[in-house]
Amino acid sequence: MIDPNYISGYVDGEGSFLVSFSPREKLSIGLEARPSFSVSQREDRSEVLDLMQSYFDCGFIRYSKRDRNRRYEVRNLKDLNKVVIPHFRKFPLLSSKIKDFEVFTQICDLMQNEQHRTRDGFINIINLAISMNIGGSRRYDKKYLLSKLKI
Amino acid sequence: MIDPNYISGYVDGEGSFLVSFSPREKLSIGLEARPSFSVSQREDRSEVLDLMQSYFDCGFIRYSKRDRNRRYEVRNLKDLNKVVIPHFRKFPLLSSKIKDFEVFTQICDLMQNEQHRTRDGFINIINLAISMNIGGSRRYDKKYLLSKLKI
Repeated sequence: MIDPNYISGYVDGEGSFLVSFSPREKLSIGLEARPSFSVSQREDRSEVLDLMQSYFDCGFIRYSKRDRNRRYEVRNLKDLNKVVIPHFRKFPLLSSKIKDFEVFTQICDLMQNEQHRTRDGFINIINLAISMNIGGSRRYDKKYLLSKLKI
Repeated sequence: MIDPNYISGYVDGEGSFLVSFSPREKLSIGLEARPSFSVSQREDRSEVLDLMQSYFDCGFIRYSKRDRNRRYEVRNLKDLNKVVIPHFRKFPLLSSKIKDFEVFTQICDLMQNEQHRTRDGFINIINLAISMNIGGSRRYDKKYLLSKLKI
């Protein structure tokens, strides 16, 4: 079995905690928030992704032809709250990436409490997500997201 | 203190074991072989590099303005053989990067035994280094290196 500290070390280098948003006409609030924990690696040395999937016993692995990377990803909110977040509480990240993790856990907790179904709750989630450091690539800006809230 | 498994996990993602070569007119053999263990990270989340330097108690950290990365590096052969290599024997890499590590240890061992001071020994080291996967960026090709051997 892979050592839990090994996973935290690997993720501190290669992993990311991200919350993305998509307009969803069918949702009464008009927007969807999607928290995601993911780790990417070049296919030819991506064995650790399979070990992580076995360790966490959730999530999926996808292959991207474009950059020949494989990516292990957990998107299910329950899996994030019950499995992934508790792991990193017990075996914490040691770099400043932990700041993103802390905001990520706040958002997952708010969503567990259905806060993303209210206007104020969703705005809170947007503000938290924007405070995270995701390397500068964000598909929608705050103004656009707020304009899509229907309630 | 940083957990040793954490270090191995971090290095499995971000680290590299490399042997580079430089022509050296002043050496009787005409070439220098330089094994190096290094880990790079964006400056703003490079805290783990400092923890690693403390853990290994050797090597140095440099800042590269060009890409805003910091790099922890161990080049001293004795430190590699006495500190770095024993760590990764005890807490092994889990990805196929371990194949590079195994060749790297062979080269460090050959150099410890002064094999890089003989023609046959140096050619052996060149062949081993070329079998390592360093992402395709190699400054000198084999033909050029062999042409620089003076004995």
